[in-house]
Amino acid sequence: MAVAVLSSPFFRTTLVSARALAIIGASNKRSSIAQFPRQCLRGKHVIAAAHDEEASAKASSSLADKEDPTIFDKIISKEIPSSIVYEDEYVLAFRDINPQAPIHVVVIPKLRDGLTQLGKAEARHEEILGKLFYAAKIVAEKEGILDGFRVVINSGPAACQSVYHLHLHVFGGRQMKWPPG
Amino acid sequence: MAVAVLSSPFFRTTLVSARALAIIGASNKRSSIAQFPRQCLRGKHVIAAAHDEEASAKASSSLADKEDPTIFDKIISKEIPSSIVYEDEYVLAFRDINPQAPIHVVVIPKLRDGLTQLGKAEARHEEILGKLFYAAKIVAEKEGILDGFRVVINSGPAACQSVYHLHLHVFGGRQMKWPPG
Repeated sequence: MAVAVLSSPFFRTTLVSARALAIIGASNKRSSIAQFPRQCLRGKHVIAAAHDEEASAKASSSLADKEDPTIFDKIISKEIPSSIVYEDEYVLAFRDINPQAPIHVVVIPKLRDGLTQLGKAEARHEEILGKLFYAAKIVAEKEGILDGFRVVINSGPAACQSVYHLHLHVFGGRQMKWPPG
Repeated sequence: MAVAVLSSPFFRTTLVSARALAIIGASNKRSSIAQFPRQCLRGKHVIAAAHDEEASAKASSSLADKEDPTIFDKIISKEIPSSIVYEDEYVLAFRDINPQAPIHVVVIPKLRDGLTQLGKAEARHEEILGKLFYAAKIVAEKEGILDGFRVVINSGPAACQSVYHLHLHVFGGRQMKWPPG
């Protein structure tokens, strides 16, 4: 799938973050990975070259204010296939292709509506935020991890956010550690 | 403060988890700390003695179905003082006394209403879940960490939940790592 996706016009014309590439399981190293804070990169994607993390964070952060399409738009439209765990009128939940736990599901609002990140939330977003939160519980139920699961939301580059479309990570199937990263 | 609190009837009659003790900064080692999964314990609280983590998880999990008071009730009632960051009719946000980042705030619903953990959420809880989520953003704004913050919700012992009153952790002020614990 990765090869097909990477050769698509979307990837030739859109700024794609390291996290986005991880989601689709990309192995192509000629990505914008250097723009991403090193601490946020997962093991197999870490690159040895030193780079300015502050500049990286700023580069990622600049995406936060833009309403440019992200890879999630293609996942919502099913143009990019994903392993869907749960879907309703408002939310979509699909497996992370680079899981950090035996169960690792990403939950997103179908309509971004300005929610590039949690830090952009306004009072009017409370309804969709509640639906997303509750969807995380539904995912845990469907995945059989109600006995123990962790939900993580990253907002901004210092928290390792890479795709600027609000998303919740749901982790389970292993003992989680503390602190959480 | 810790001494006064630990000598109170509340602590003599209530099962208190290691996490709850951490929140109030307790140094008393004669606690129920051994009931808590070792991976969830923070550095200074880790004990060397081997113990059955599965049994520990089950012991913690048994609290999840009970509506027994937790330390958060005393924090909400102000019987136990806390460093409050934000408060409204529905939610209370206060600093974690054992912070895992320069900014570490706990956000809770004032009315637990069955939400001992996220895994117990029902559709009727969506409204308060939305308010909690949005309160996390307000906290980030007040603490000056809108450029990057992470929100974490632990549900159940395998995720390191210790206090069975739903709560969100808000972290900021440092580069967060991946995976998140």
